[in-house]
Amino acid sequence: MSRRFVNSLQDGETLDEVFLLADRQLRANRNGDLYLLAQLCDRTGTVSGLLWNVEEDSVSHINQGDYVRIRGKVQLFQGNLQVILTHINAISSQGIDLENFVPKPTEKTTEHFQRLTEILLNLENPELRGLMECFLQDEEVKQGLIYAPAGIRLHHAFHGGLLEHNLNLSETALRIVDLYPKVDFDLLLAGIFMHDLGKLRELSFETSFSYTDEGQLIGHLVIGVEMLNEKIAEYENKTGQEFPRETKLRLKHMILSHHGSYEHGTARLPMTPEAIALHHLDNLDAKTNEYMSLIESDPNSGSNWTPYQSNMQRKLYKGGLDSTDFD
Amino acid sequence: MSRRFVNSLQDGETLDEVFLLADRQLRANRNGDLYLLAQLCDRTGTVSGLLWNVEEDSVSHINQGDYVRIRGKVQLFQGNLQVILTHINAISSQGIDLENFVPKPTEKTTEHFQRLTEILLNLENPELRGLMECFLQDEEVKQGLIYAPAGIRLHHAFHGGLLEHNLNLSETALRIVDLYPKVDFDLLLAGIFMHDLGKLRELSFETSFSYTDEGQLIGHLVIGVEMLNEKIAEYENKTGQEFPRETKLRLKHMILSHHGSYEHGTARLPMTPEAIALHHLDNLDAKTNEYMSLIESDPNSGSNWTPYQSNMQRKLYKGGLDSTDFD
Amino acid sequence: MSRRFVNSLQDGETLDEVFLLADRQLRANRNGDLYLLAQLCDRTGTVSGLLWNVEEDSVSHINQGDYVRIRGKVQLFQGNLQVILTHINAISSQGIDLENFVPKPTEKTTEHFQRLTEILLNLENPELRGLMECFLQDEEVKQGLIYAPAGIRLHHAFHGGLLEHNLNLSETALRIVDLYPKVDFDLLLAGIFMHDLGKLRELSFETSFSYTDEGQLIGHLVIGVEMLNEKIAEYENKTGQEFPRETKLRLKHMILSHHGSYEHGTARLPMTPEAIALHHLDNLDAKTNEYMSLIESDPNSGSNWTPYQSNMQRKLYKGGLDSTDFD
Amino acid sequence: MSRRFVNSLQDGETLDEVFLLADRQLRANRNGDLYLLAQLCDRTGTVSGLLWNVEEDSVSHINQGDYVRIRGKVQLFQGNLQVILTHINAISSQGIDLENFVPKPTEKTTEHFQRLTEILLNLENPELRGLMECFLQDEEVKQGLIYAPAGIRLHHAFHGGLLEHNLNLSETALRIVDLYPKVDFDLLLAGIFMHDLGKLRELSFETSFSYTDEGQLIGHLVIGVEMLNEKIAEYENKTGQEFPRETKLRLKHMILSHHGSYEHGTARLPMTPEAIALHHLDNLDAKTNEYMSLIESDPNSGSNWTPYQSNMQRKLYKGGLDSTDFD
Amino acid sequence: MSRRFVNSLQDGETLDEVFLLADRQLRANRNGDLYLLAQLCDRTGTVSGLLWNVEEDSVSHINQGDYVRIRGKVQLFQGNLQVILTHINAISSQGIDLENFVPKPTEKTTEHFQRLTEILLNLENPELRGLMECFLQDEEVKQGLIYAPAGIRLHHAFHGGLLEHNLNLSETALRIVDLYPKVDFDLLLAGIFMHDLGKLRELSFETSFSYTDEGQLIGHLVIGVEMLNEKIAEYENKTGQEFPRETKLRLKHMILSHHGSYEHGTARLPMTPEAIALHHLDNLDAKTNEYMSLIESDPNSGSNWTPYQSNMQRKLYKGGLDSTDFD
Amino acid sequence: MSRRFVNSLQDGETLDEVFLLADRQLRANRNGDLYLLAQLCDRTGTVSGLLWNVEEDSVSHINQGDYVRIRGKVQLFQGNLQVILTHINAISSQGIDLENFVPKPTEKTTEHFQRLTEILLNLENPELRGLMECFLQDEEVKQGLIYAPAGIRLHHAFHGGLLEHNLNLSETALRIVDLYPKVDFDLLLAGIFMHDLGKLRELSFETSFSYTDEGQLIGHLVIGVEMLNEKIAEYENKTGQEFPRETKLRLKHMILSHHGSYEHGTARLPMTPEAIALHHLDNLDAKTNEYMSLIESDPNSGSNWTPYQSNMQRKLYKGGLDSTDFD
Repeated sequence: MSRRFVNSLQDGETLDEVFLLADRQLRANRNGDLYLLAQLCDRTGTVSGLLWNVEEDSVSHINQGDYVRIRGKVQLFQGNLQVILTHINAISSQGIDLENFVPKPTEKTTEHFQRLTEILLNLENPELRGLMECFLQDEEVKQGLIYAPAGIRLHHAFHGGLLEHNLNLSETALRIVDLYPKVDFDLLLAGIFMHDLGKLRELSFETSFSYTDEGQLIGHLVIGVEMLNEKIAEYENKTGQEFPRETKLRLKHMILSHHGSYEHGTARLPMTPEAIALHHLDNLDAKTNEYMSLIESDPNSGSNWTPYQSNMQRKLYKGGLDSTDFD
Repeated sequence: MSRRFVNSLQDGETLDEVFLLADRQLRANRNGDLYLLAQLCDRTGTVSGLLWNVEEDSVSHINQGDYVRIRGKVQLFQGNLQVILTHINAISSQGIDLENFVPKPTEKTTEHFQRLTEILLNLENPELRGLMECFLQDEEVKQGLIYAPAGIRLHHAFHGGLLEHNLNLSETALRIVDLYPKVDFDLLLAGIFMHDLGKLRELSFETSFSYTDEGQLIGHLVIGVEMLNEKIAEYENKTGQEFPRETKLRLKHMILSHHGSYEHGTARLPMTPEAIALHHLDNLDAKTNEYMSLIESDPNSGSNWTPYQSNMQRKLYKGGLDSTDFD
Repeated sequence: MSRRFVNSLQDGETLDEVFLLADRQLRANRNGDLYLLAQLCDRTGTVSGLLWNVEEDSVSHINQGDYVRIRGKVQLFQGNLQVILTHINAISSQGIDLENFVPKPTEKTTEHFQRLTEILLNLENPELRGLMECFLQDEEVKQGLIYAPAGIRLHHAFHGGLLEHNLNLSETALRIVDLYPKVDFDLLLAGIFMHDLGKLRELSFETSFSYTDEGQLIGHLVIGVEMLNEKIAEYENKTGQEFPRETKLRLKHMILSHHGSYEHGTARLPMTPEAIALHHLDNLDAKTNEYMSLIESDPNSGSNWTPYQSNMQRKLYKGGLDSTDFD
Repeated sequence: MSRRFVNSLQDGETLDEVFLLADRQLRANRNGDLYLLAQLCDRTGTVSGLLWNVEEDSVSHINQGDYVRIRGKVQLFQGNLQVILTHINAISSQGIDLENFVPKPTEKTTEHFQRLTEILLNLENPELRGLMECFLQDEEVKQGLIYAPAGIRLHHAFHGGLLEHNLNLSETALRIVDLYPKVDFDLLLAGIFMHDLGKLRELSFETSFSYTDEGQLIGHLVIGVEMLNEKIAEYENKTGQEFPRETKLRLKHMILSHHGSYEHGTARLPMTPEAIALHHLDNLDAKTNEYMSLIESDPNSGSNWTPYQSNMQRKLYKGGLDSTDFD
Repeated sequence: MSRRFVNSLQDGETLDEVFLLADRQLRANRNGDLYLLAQLCDRTGTVSGLLWNVEEDSVSHINQGDYVRIRGKVQLFQGNLQVILTHINAISSQGIDLENFVPKPTEKTTEHFQRLTEILLNLENPELRGLMECFLQDEEVKQGLIYAPAGIRLHHAFHGGLLEHNLNLSETALRIVDLYPKVDFDLLLAGIFMHDLGKLRELSFETSFSYTDEGQLIGHLVIGVEMLNEKIAEYENKTGQEFPRETKLRLKHMILSHHGSYEHGTARLPMTPEAIALHHLDNLDAKTNEYMSLIESDPNSGSNWTPYQSNMQRKLYKGGLDSTDFD
Repeated sequence: MSRRFVNSLQDGETLDEVFLLADRQLRANRNGDLYLLAQLCDRTGTVSGLLWNVEEDSVSHINQGDYVRIRGKVQLFQGNLQVILTHINAISSQGIDLENFVPKPTEKTTEHFQRLTEILLNLENPELRGLMECFLQDEEVKQGLIYAPAGIRLHHAFHGGLLEHNLNLSETALRIVDLYPKVDFDLLLAGIFMHDLGKLRELSFETSFSYTDEGQLIGHLVIGVEMLNEKIAEYENKTGQEFPRETKLRLKHMILSHHGSYEHGTARLPMTPEAIALHHLDNLDAKTNEYMSLIESDPNSGSNWTPYQSNMQRKLYKGGLDSTDFD
């Protein structure tokens, strides 16, 4: 019998399948009874599993990252599917077809990477082009870009999301070159490429999304500068030429300042035209996508508004009943 | 003898000419002696004039807005030209060629207006297109757009600046339509056109730039909504059709929310995808231009940095000595 | 048998009655079982109804705004009455005595309206008096004032609350005329009347209180200016005279600035004596009432303090055990 | 020859007179030449005196608080009178009629004190009335109230200003008693009396206005509580009765919380109805007077606006040319 | 049978014991059933007790502060012990050995008090030493110091915590005397002793920790100044000498300014070297202890991070798996 | 004749000497006349020089960093010495004794460096000790520490100031080891050493103090992390061992978080006990020194207060007339 993937589960079906355990938590209901809340995932997605009335000891041997065999029943609850478990146990990874659990790059992601490569290898500035080449030929960076999300919540929170965000900014920049003749677009495009690259080490995104220790202690801005320093050393080794000091400073400055203001955790305030343009291009893409995604994923079809979003201190408007033009 | 225009004055020349008095202030030096600081302008620009050792009474009959005949000597002072006056007197406007003082639209401005018209008359949404038509056929709006600056300091502070800012946003929006398939670009383009339109009444910009009483008491956000209400009434009169209520609300919301956050004086927080996109497009163009303009107009050729900009709490980086790529 | 009104329900009684459904939500308890939480109202008030163990489908046809027939038992729970439902179904409004559900103005409200009318028709300034007359003769405005609350939570959150708040400010202003000889009290009284008038369109308050789409997208400050523009047009039509431009600007400014500071969402900072006086009179009445109402409605008789009010970041002091003077 | 008082000086007159030196500063003009700026005062006011081209040594023996004989010429400068000095020297206070220098209470101030006394001795609460009596019979408090300003700049910055502010709040409170039946107005009136009383020790106001060391290190909120503690001890001594603990706490709380929010330097957030009412009554009177006073004292008759007030981040609107109703 | 103290309870044991009821709350589970949550304490600690399915009336006679006899079963729940109650009833305090419920000073606390006494009686400044002596001989102050926590949550929230915090600051100050030769360490040590002393009246800490009415209405900064005033009067009475005014002002200023900034509720900004040193010494000890205590008390052994601390807007890092040096 | 050093100049003396030009600015007085303001320095200090009535061209060849021969007269002005120049000209550095202009480490600085070395080479943790050794053996770091100030204004703004600040923190940490048994003091001492080390590249401090381009664009927090990365590579090369990853992360985190809060420009919020302790130790030393230095350098002997310090929004208290204990 073929595998039941997460994205094909249906209300009411009985399930006996292996999943990767992305997270596990013991919670208590108001009566003081414990239940297990498990995040079950494969390469197509994640579904919650609940096991009622457990003892702390009986599930202590099941850990995040294990492969688990579960039995249970799929149920629709408040618009989402979940699995009511009757059994869960860790199993060995031997004999498991890992391809079912590791996400594969979609065709779209592959196209994104090719298009971004094309853009960066066409920079006119030879040093920047050479530096970009070093990044693009680094298999780890390439794999990271294909799988990394742009964040763990909010905008572009999916495999390949960082790449899509990166490309959207680059495309926008390319199309407005003639409107800002005094802005150095080669520098801007390199800065766009670099600005969130530190997320490859800030985030853990193999199966589910979370922050690494390094990510929380150092942050993707500074990690990005470290990655730049490493790649510049590689560039200089390879070419035997010193990378221009002025360009290096400006690139670092763009990475460190792209959050724009101290209250948003920037390390520096933007002080060059390219840095301020990067900051606002970033916001344009990130915020527009965040709004669209909150509106599209809202399950309350009866309301013109999303629930209150406390992080942005507002509700979003999904549209009035007579607004057929704006859905 | 032909007129000496402001933009052709030279260090050391003796001057006997008529100007429009854009502003006048009596100031005192540390010895308690009064001097007159006059802003003299014609259609090519503005120059400061100083008359030393005046009495309060002797200049009280000269008012802002007068045409004045002045005599004096042009001198270079800290990189700017100024006129040391020996004589200043108000004269009648009779016999004066007003064309010397009223700015004429440049060719660029005329092209900008044509391009913006072309964009707005090509909207697909018929009601929005009809509404835009009402604005574009209003001679007062057209004249306003040709002369209005986008602000009295900071970005686009020149005749036609509001139009240029408006067009830049529209062009950027047009070029990224395919990147945001869920955003309603007809609505966004109409919102771009409207977002700063209230500045036509918020600012006085015939000869020099300042705020009107209405501008300070009401602000261009609310004035923009009032102008929209007036034009919608005109549209409904003309077409005999009600303008769609949903579209009207969304347009008003974009105008009122385009400043983005309360600390920047917005009347509403952006709650629709088009409103948030407008806010960041606005910032992208306004801030990038503000940076470029501060860097270009900085007279200190010996420093890599502009002076400290207290409104943005930073200096801007003009570039290092070896940065021939980034001037 | 006569109707059981909300304000006469008693612990333990069995209920079979028709109510207006002001709100409905499906919630889940910790066991994952769904229950329906319904807000049942008539003209005397609102009571919560709970239907345990429902399916999403079985209640999806019952909508907010329906008349519903319910059966169930009234129960006291943590100091409030609620109804444990055994049955709920939508019914046709035919044959229903609507007067049971639409609140009628109380005698107090009628007196408030008469007193406010008296104050405004005694303004000395003829244009302001004429303008106020236009508002007071507008049946929609009158009905709105009689039913509108001043807010959906916090101070004056009851039918007629906006009117009571309005009148309290006016009375206070009238009594201190002699203390501020330089303040224009006709303008201040007209500004008091106008300052929250936009709430007639910002809020929906027929049966229960909520924000309208227009209210959230535009806000009552700008709606108030729109209502003023409409009424001034009416005044000018009726009298054949232009309403004084200066007075119009000052009135609009008072409406737009009465929230006082940007962090409280004001559209303009107060810049005239009347505007600043309005802002502080508004606060005096709103905050004093909010405090009294929080203290009076607190059910914990055993504590000297209300619970922590997170929106104002403090508890309120209800009084010590020996404070018989201060209850 | 009779004395030339400050409030009777005239442009152009030659002066040889004795004044009290309220302040003295050595300043330098841009040429590096020193001049002395002296504040000369008598009981009718203060005028600036300037002595050009002094040496630091030649004026080092003249100190703030000295009586000085000056010779010079009165001149009008930018709308204010000043004295260009030719001579200044400290003299002994012997033989000087001190009454010329110590301000005498005006008739208005005497009336204010009588009216305030009347209000406070009519409180119904016997303990509060008794406590107020202790304050009013304290000659130091009485003298303080007659001479103290409410501040050194901004609102009510004149002798008797604190008393006038105090009385204005009390009158307003008295007139709205019926509008707030749940507020304890005896407590509110006692709180109004106490709220700024610490300024009697925070400020030095005998001849000119400044902060005392105690004022800067402790502040008038805490000084007010100390004064209250002292007076309650006196009350208890006198009456042999303990002052009610609850009333004492509430009074202290009103004093400590009347600045309303931490950003305005309050010691506590208001947590009782009387405390919040006091805070807003205080603001209503203080801010309305500050606005009126800034508008009235603005010397630029040609502008509709005061200069930018950086402490309140706005200009104030004085009125348009056609606004004869609003001067 | 000997008493079962809170700190010796074990999972699974059956309990029949008397406790002091530190707090009681009625809560409802999602089914609308009420349960009683009781805080049971003796001198060794506090444990939660839960009584399922109670009626409001059946427990209304049991009040906070009562001695209660309970029967139930101890159970481990999410890492904490709790008691599932089958019976709870208030009993008379007669015949109860109160020593079981009143905490006794530990040996450590006694040592702390002796060491602090030693430090303060060795001050060189005779007036400060005399004043400290007055405090240390006050039995109420001594008892307070032995039992008071430094706060009700966060750092040093245990009996004797205020004293430990006080001593830690004093020890640190003593050891760096030579590094800051211009700082007056006698004044600093007296200020350290005084800075939180108002907590003796701000907090109630006999059995459990909470705020007093006085504490919330006045705050420990101002209470501290009041205590200082009382003790200075005692000092002056005893010695017949006036306490130096300058020293008094500086001490009060240190108490009132030790919170450092208005946003942290300081009454004054620090304006002397001793005041600023006190503020940062306070923070150094308080924050370092708060971090250590949050890390040590975190029960999630599987995570490198504590849960998100919303009051400090961050998680704390407990250490990585390979960090044996840093536990 | 021996050289006249800056620190030995006297009022009234005539000067003919060579100085290093640390800064030059053209300014205008109110009459529009230009004067040159020159900062003249040698290794003992800096003095202002003023040349009246210059033309822009006549001084354009004299640049910052030049050696200049000046003639003029020393004069006391408002408590500071300045030189009124009659002549200034750039000269060749040939034949100049550079030792007169380059500051030499004082004996105190040498002792500080030895003591710091002693502390760091006694760390128990071998990897941290080894890493510190790499830094201390780097001649560039050593020279930097000997000359670098801790800032260009505010605290420790003198040659060797960074080292003194560094040492003060280390000494304080060493003396309180026993008070915080759970804090890792080896890590804390290494973090103290590193926290401001980026200032060696952020600041230019050879003759006068200013920011480098790198300093402004990147900031000393991130530069510090870059320096750490470089030194760790050196350590690993030298020892052939990997530096422990956990220790590296914690060190970087301390550097990046030592500014404490986003409003003070921190790159990360402190999340470890050592990071929070470092932040407060840093503040304790920096702020106490800043206060002492502002009080000591204040020239107004007649006032109890320094002038208003706008960056800290307060005046500082220097002490009252009777405060002989507190100077």
